[in-house]
Amino acid sequence: MNKFKILNDPIYGFINIPSELVFDIIEHPFFQRLRRISQMGLSHFVYQGAHHTRFEHALGAMFLMQRAISSLRKKGVKISENENDSLLLAILLHDIGHGPFSHTLEHSLVTNIHHEEISLLFMEQLNKEFDGKLTTAIQILKGQYHRKFLNQLVSSQLDIDRLDYLKRDSFYTGVTEGNINSERIISMLNVVDDSLVVEEKGIYSVEKFIVARRLMYWMVYLHKTSLVADFVLLNILKKAKELVSKGAELPCSGSLQVFLKQTETFTFNDELLLEFSKIDDYDIIMALKQWKNYPDKVLATLSNSIINRKLPKISIQDNEFSKVTIQQKREETKVKLAISDNDVDYFFGVGMIENQAYNLHNSSIDILLKSGEIKDITEASDHMNLLALSKPVVKHFMYYPK
Amino acid sequence: MNKFKILNDPIYGFINIPSELVFDIIEHPFFQRLRRISQMGLSHFVYQGAHHTRFEHALGAMFLMQRAISSLRKKGVKISENENDSLLLAILLHDIGHGPFSHTLEHSLVTNIHHEEISLLFMEQLNKEFDGKLTTAIQILKGQYHRKFLNQLVSSQLDIDRLDYLKRDSFYTGVTEGNINSERIISMLNVVDDSLVVEEKGIYSVEKFIVARRLMYWMVYLHKTSLVADFVLLNILKKAKELVSKGAELPCSGSLQVFLKQTETFTFNDELLLEFSKIDDYDIIMALKQWKNYPDKVLATLSNSIINRKLPKISIQDNEFSKVTIQQKREETKVKLAISDNDVDYFFGVGMIENQAYNLHNSSIDILLKSGEIKDITEASDHMNLLALSKPVVKHFMYYPK
Amino acid sequence: MNKFKILNDPIYGFINIPSELVFDIIEHPFFQRLRRISQMGLSHFVYQGAHHTRFEHALGAMFLMQRAISSLRKKGVKISENENDSLLLAILLHDIGHGPFSHTLEHSLVTNIHHEEISLLFMEQLNKEFDGKLTTAIQILKGQYHRKFLNQLVSSQLDIDRLDYLKRDSFYTGVTEGNINSERIISMLNVVDDSLVVEEKGIYSVEKFIVARRLMYWMVYLHKTSLVADFVLLNILKKAKELVSKGAELPCSGSLQVFLKQTETFTFNDELLLEFSKIDDYDIIMALKQWKNYPDKVLATLSNSIINRKLPKISIQDNEFSKVTIQQKREETKVKLAISDNDVDYFFGVGMIENQAYNLHNSSIDILLKSGEIKDITEASDHMNLLALSKPVVKHFMYYPK
Amino acid sequence: MNKFKILNDPIYGFINIPSELVFDIIEHPFFQRLRRISQMGLSHFVYQGAHHTRFEHALGAMFLMQRAISSLRKKGVKISENENDSLLLAILLHDIGHGPFSHTLEHSLVTNIHHEEISLLFMEQLNKEFDGKLTTAIQILKGQYHRKFLNQLVSSQLDIDRLDYLKRDSFYTGVTEGNINSERIISMLNVVDDSLVVEEKGIYSVEKFIVARRLMYWMVYLHKTSLVADFVLLNILKKAKELVSKGAELPCSGSLQVFLKQTETFTFNDELLLEFSKIDDYDIIMALKQWKNYPDKVLATLSNSIINRKLPKISIQDNEFSKVTIQQKREETKVKLAISDNDVDYFFGVGMIENQAYNLHNSSIDILLKSGEIKDITEASDHMNLLALSKPVVKHFMYYPK
Repeated sequence: MNKFKILNDPIYGFINIPSELVFDIIEHPFFQRLRRISQMGLSHFVYQGAHHTRFEHALGAMFLMQRAISSLRKKGVKISENENDSLLLAILLHDIGHGPFSHTLEHSLVTNIHHEEISLLFMEQLNKEFDGKLTTAIQILKGQYHRKFLNQLVSSQLDIDRLDYLKRDSFYTGVTEGNINSERIISMLNVVDDSLVVEEKGIYSVEKFIVARRLMYWMVYLHKTSLVADFVLLNILKKAKELVSKGAELPCSGSLQVFLKQTETFTFNDELLLEFSKIDDYDIIMALKQWKNYPDKVLATLSNSIINRKLPKISIQDNEFSKVTIQQKREETKVKLAISDNDVDYFFGVGMIENQAYNLHNSSIDILLKSGEIKDITEASDHMNLLALSKPVVKHFMYYPK
Repeated sequence: MNKFKILNDPIYGFINIPSELVFDIIEHPFFQRLRRISQMGLSHFVYQGAHHTRFEHALGAMFLMQRAISSLRKKGVKISENENDSLLLAILLHDIGHGPFSHTLEHSLVTNIHHEEISLLFMEQLNKEFDGKLTTAIQILKGQYHRKFLNQLVSSQLDIDRLDYLKRDSFYTGVTEGNINSERIISMLNVVDDSLVVEEKGIYSVEKFIVARRLMYWMVYLHKTSLVADFVLLNILKKAKELVSKGAELPCSGSLQVFLKQTETFTFNDELLLEFSKIDDYDIIMALKQWKNYPDKVLATLSNSIINRKLPKISIQDNEFSKVTIQQKREETKVKLAISDNDVDYFFGVGMIENQAYNLHNSSIDILLKSGEIKDITEASDHMNLLALSKPVVKHFMYYPK
Repeated sequence: MNKFKILNDPIYGFINIPSELVFDIIEHPFFQRLRRISQMGLSHFVYQGAHHTRFEHALGAMFLMQRAISSLRKKGVKISENENDSLLLAILLHDIGHGPFSHTLEHSLVTNIHHEEISLLFMEQLNKEFDGKLTTAIQILKGQYHRKFLNQLVSSQLDIDRLDYLKRDSFYTGVTEGNINSERIISMLNVVDDSLVVEEKGIYSVEKFIVARRLMYWMVYLHKTSLVADFVLLNILKKAKELVSKGAELPCSGSLQVFLKQTETFTFNDELLLEFSKIDDYDIIMALKQWKNYPDKVLATLSNSIINRKLPKISIQDNEFSKVTIQQKREETKVKLAISDNDVDYFFGVGMIENQAYNLHNSSIDILLKSGEIKDITEASDHMNLLALSKPVVKHFMYYPK
Repeated sequence: MNKFKILNDPIYGFINIPSELVFDIIEHPFFQRLRRISQMGLSHFVYQGAHHTRFEHALGAMFLMQRAISSLRKKGVKISENENDSLLLAILLHDIGHGPFSHTLEHSLVTNIHHEEISLLFMEQLNKEFDGKLTTAIQILKGQYHRKFLNQLVSSQLDIDRLDYLKRDSFYTGVTEGNINSERIISMLNVVDDSLVVEEKGIYSVEKFIVARRLMYWMVYLHKTSLVADFVLLNILKKAKELVSKGAELPCSGSLQVFLKQTETFTFNDELLLEFSKIDDYDIIMALKQWKNYPDKVLATLSNSIINRKLPKISIQDNEFSKVTIQQKREETKVKLAISDNDVDYFFGVGMIENQAYNLHNSSIDILLKSGEIKDITEASDHMNLLALSKPVVKHFMYYPK
C-alpha cells in the first residue's frame, strides 16, 4: 500500500488506517460527505468550538475500536482477521446515514426512516461496490452475526461509539464534566460467554462514564438554546414543505428540493439514497441564507433566526405547563407577530425532554467480579446512586418569541 | 516589596504572593516545614506520582481563594481589605498543623488533638510574632467572625480547600475521575444573606464535584493498598511507643523521641508545639530505615514492610467479616509468623471504612435558583442520585500477612 | 444589562462579554457571519479537527486582551476606560474583513484589497450605526492613536492576535509543537516609553513562541496538502470568473455572482461591502457542489477535486525546479488530461513559499532587561539561533495531477 | 503470573509490567530505593511540584521503550524476545546508580565514579541474583552488544531516557516549554543499517525536542535558584567531610557516615555498594536537620540554609566576573559573616554553566529522508537555527550571602 496511512486527530494523535479497504472507503464520496455533516447540529450556538464533524467521530471511533480489539486479544479473546476488519468497518460506517446537522433534522427532512437504517442502506451499496467485503460488518451492525459481543462493541450502553463521542464532544465544547477516560475503560473490557463485560476494577470508571453522560445531556445535548435552535430549524423545514406542497418554488439545491417534495409515505429507494448522499449542512444553510429574503414572512423570519442567531425564548421546568399558560402564551405570540392561527406553531411550541443516564431494561452494562460472578452495574456498585441514575428524568419546555 | 513575588504551580501556572505578610509567613520555618509533609501519606505506593506536599496544596488553595474573592467582589459582594488578607491567611494556614504523612499518623503520633486544633495553635504562635495580624484569620477559621460566609469559604462541603485538593490529587495520581473544574465552580459562587450559595447554572458542576469526591475516596483515598500501608505505619508507631514505655532506646530523631514517650494524657503546650514543628516525613522514614534492623522482630518486620513495600494482604467486602473468619485468620497469622498473641494485632486487623459523598446534616451546599429561592443541592437537583449520594456507604476490611 | 454575558470557549473556559456595546457588536450580522468563515481554510483536509471559525478566534483574542489590560494595569500602566473598550473592539474586529476560507481566497474573490482594509470598512460602517463609539478602536488599528503600545497590542510580532491563533490552531490540529503559553507571555508584558516590551524573565517563553510559530508554518499553515488545496480553490475561482466573463451563467448565490463579475479595477464601495458581508464558506462550497456537474470540464473536475478531496500531487524542494522539469511536467499534464494549453495552468503550477519566524526589520520584539536596558530579542537572547530564525527560509513547490 | 501487573502513571496512564522478571526487579530493595531519590534534586525550591522520583522516571522510560519496540517491529525491524526483555531492563535500570538528589551530589558523596558506572555495578549484582538474566541488558548499556541501535535507544541524543524525563519534568514543573511529544517522536523512529534514524516527517518534532531541551536547561535544570541550592548542599557535604576528617562525630545515619569518612582514593567495592544502596534523600535531609544545630557554625548555617530555604544570592552574566569583583565580593562575604578565610568558600563561589542543546560531535540525530538518504539533523533541517543550537552557550555565575 503506497497510500497515505496516517490521520491527525486532536484527541488521540495519530490514527492509523489499517488497510487498503478502509482507505478506499474513507476516500469514497459517501464518506467524504461526512466532512460536511456537523456532529452536534447547532450546538455551536452555545459552545462555539463545537464545529466538529461526523467524519472525525467515525475515525475516532475506529481508532478506539483498534485499541479495544488489541486489548481483548491480549486477554486471550479470539478475534479473527475478518472479524477485526469488520468491526472497524462497522464502527466507521455506523453513522454514515446521518443527514444534515445529524440528529436535528432526522425526523424532518426524511420522515419515516432512522439514520441507522440509512447507514445500512449505504453499506449495502458500498458492499456491492466492494465485492461483498462489508458483509460481516453489516451482519454485526444488524446484530445477526453469531458472536454477540461484536455487536455490543458497536451498539450497547457502553459501546465504542459513546466512548468516542462523549470524549470528543467534551473536548470541543470545553465541558470537562463529560471528559471520560475512554482508554482506561477500554483496557478493562473483557468477554465472558460471548458477552461484553467490564472487569471489577473498572467499576468506578463506568460510574464516572454514566454520570458524565447524564451531565453532557443536560449541559450540552439538551441545552435549552440548542433545543430551541433545533425547533426553529425543524419548523423551517416544515414550512418549506408546506409551501412546496402548495406549489411554491423555493430557491435551494436540487437534491434538497427532491426531499421537500416528498410526502410522508415515500419509499427510500436507491435513487433517493443517491439524492440523500448529496445533501449536507451546506445545502441547508445556503437555503436559509436565500429564504431569509423569501416573500413568505414565516419562512423568512425563521430562516433569519438561524442565520443571525435571533432565537426565540425558551422556558424549562420540572412540571408540565398548565393549559392556561400555554393558551395564553400562544395567543400572545399570535398577536405579537400578527400571524394567522395556523402559523403560530412555527414560533411557539411545548414539549418534553427526557434524560436517562442508564437504562436498566436495555442492553445492560455487566461487571465481571473478581469472584467470577457477573452482575449488572447497578447491582455491582456499592451505591444506590447508579440505580437512581436509571430513573428517567423528564422536563417540560415552552418556547415563544422574545 | 523587593521580595520575590511569583510561585510556579504545575496546575495553575503563576501564583502571586499578594503581600509582604504572606511572603513572610511562607518564609517562616513553620510553613517551610510543609515542604516535607506529603499531602497524601503513603498513596504513592499505589499512585507513584503522588509525592506532592502540603506546601503546594496550601499555596494552591490560596490561589483559588484569590480567584473566589475577585469573583465575589465583581458580583457586588463587599469584602474589606482586612477580610481579603485574612481569608488568604486562613486558607494558607488551615493545614499547617498536619504532622508527618498528613492524615495517616494523625491519631497516633499525637493522640488527643486534631490537626485543625494544632493549626490554630501554630497560628496563635505566628500571631504573636506578627503583632496580631492574624487575629481575623483565626476568628474566621474558628467560625467566630461575624460574617459567616467567610468561614464557609475555608470550611464547608464546597470549600476552597476541597476545590484545590481534589483537583491536585487527581493531577498527581492521574485519576481523571477526580478532575473537577474548580475555577468554573468558583465563578458561580455568590453570597445571599451572609451565606455562600452556588448559582443555579452551576448545579451540574456541583453534581460532578460530589461524584468526583466519592470516586476519589474509593479509587484513591481509601484504596486498599494505601489503607493497609497506613495501618502498618500506625502499628509501627504503636509498637515503638510500647517498646519505649518499657525502657527501650529506639534510634530516631530527638523530636520524634519526645512524642514516642508521651502518654495518652499529655497536654499540647508551647514546648511540645515547638517539638512538633520539627517533625516531618523525614523523621519517620529515617526512623524506619534504622528500625528495620532493630532487634525487636515486630518493629523490624513492620519497618521493612514500609521501606521495601512488602505490604500485608487486605480484603474488602460489603458485609462484616464473621467472627469465625476473623478468629481463624488471626490464628493463622499467629502461627505463620510465630509470634505472641499480644503481637498478632500488629500484623492483623479488621475495621470498616465509610464514604459519604455528601452530608445532608452538615453545612449544606445551597443553590440559588433563578427565581431567587435557595434550595439544598439534593432538592434543587432534578434527580434522586444526589440524595442517594448523601447515604454513607460502609465497607469492611481485614488485613493479614501474605 | 439583562443580556447573556458569558461565552464558552474550549480553550479558556468562560469568556465574559464586558459591555453592552460589545454584546451588540457580537449580535450584529456582520459579526455573526464569522461563524461561517473557517479560521484555517481547507486545513481540515490534513488536520481533521480544524473546523474552528473566525468567530471563536475573535472572541478568544478579546479574552486575552482583557487579561493583558488587567496585567498591565496591575503594573501601573495607565489605560483609560475608553482605551480599554477600544482595545477590546479593535481586537474583536481586526479580522472581520476576512472572506470565505480566510486567507485562501484573499486575493482571488476580491483582488485589489487586503482583508485588513475590509475590516476597517466594516468598522467604519459599524461606527455609523453605533454613534461613533468605534472611533478610537479604528484609530488604534490604523496606528493613528497617540499611544503607540495600544497599536502594538493588536498588531505586532507578538500581538494578541498571534497569541490566540497559535494556541487555538495548535489545539484544533493537535500539533502540540505550536502550543504556546499565551497567558504566561501576557503576564510578562510591560510598557516602557509608550512601547510594548517583554520583561527579561519572559525571554525563553518568547523564544518558544518564535520557534512554535516557525513550526506551525511548516507543519500546518504551509503543509503541502493544504497548499495544493488552496491552489485548486483559487483556480476554481479563476476559471469561474473566466467563464462568467465569457457570458456563462454559473449556478451560485447572487452575492457570489456579483464578485465573479468584477473586473480587476472595481472599487470596493458600500454596496459591494454589503454584498461581501453576505458571502461565507457556504456560498463557495455550495457553488462547488453544483459546479462539479457543470458542462465545463475544467470547472467540474476542479470542483469535484475539493468536494471529494481528490487533490493533485505536490512536490516541495529547497531549490527551484529547473525549467526543463517544469516544461516536461506541464506537458505531461496537458497530455494526461487532454486539455488545451490555456487550461493546463488550472491543474499545474509552480511557486515558492517563505517562512520567516521572526522579522528583524519589522516591529521588533523588545526585551526589558533587569538593568533597565531594552534590547531586541535577537540581541537579548544568549544564543545565535534567534538570529538564525530571522533569516527567511524559502522552498519551491510544483503541483500536477496524480 | 498471579502478581499485580499494572502501575498508575499520571502522564501515560496505565503502565503494564511485562514479565515476572521485571516485576521481581521492581520489587527489589535496590529498585524500591529509587522511591526515595528525587529526580530533580532541589528544583522543588523553584518549581514546587517537582517532587517526583527516579522510581517513576525509570518506569516511565520502560513504558516508552515498550512503545518504541512495538512501533519498530510494526515497521519490520526484527527484535528478538531476549532483546525486547533486555531493552526494558536496560532502560529500567540505567539510573539505578543515582545517589541522593540525583545529580546534585554526584561528585561529592562519591567522588571518583559516575552514576552510570554505579548503575552497572548494581546490575552486575542483580545479574548474580537473577541467574544471568541481565547479561544482555548490561551489554546493551555498555555498548558492547552487537546491534548498535539497541544501545542508541537507551543512550544517545534522542534516547528514550530523554524522551521521558523532558516530558516528565515539564509536567511536574509546569514549564510547558519542555512538553515534548514523546509518542509522536517514537512513532517516527526507524532503523537503517543497524542505526537509529528518524523519518523525515518527524524533522520538526525533533527540532521542537532540541529547542525544548535547551529551554528546560535554562528555565529549570540550570535555574539560578536550583543552582545555588545545589552548591550549598555540596558545600555542606564538603564541610562535613572536613570535620569528620578532623575527628568530629557528626550525627547522621551509619551508611552516610561511611561515605563521609571516605578519602578521594577509595575503591567502590561490593561492600561499599551495599552501603550506597542504603542511602537516599532521607539520610541527607535528616542529617541537615540535625546539623543545623551542630556547634560548627559553618555546617549549622549551611544546613539551616537548605532546611528553611535561606539561600545565598546568585548573579549570572554572559561574561566572566572580573578578578576585582570576585576579590571584593569574597572579602565582603568574609567580613559580613565574620569567618576565617578558609571558610569563605563555603558561602561564596564563582563558576560557569554550559548549555549545548545539540552536540554535533556526539552521537548524532540522523534523519532518514524520503529519498532514502540519511543526514544529520543540522543538515537535514531547512534552517540554520539547528546549527546554531549546536554551539554551546556559556554563562558565568557568582554566589554570595544575601
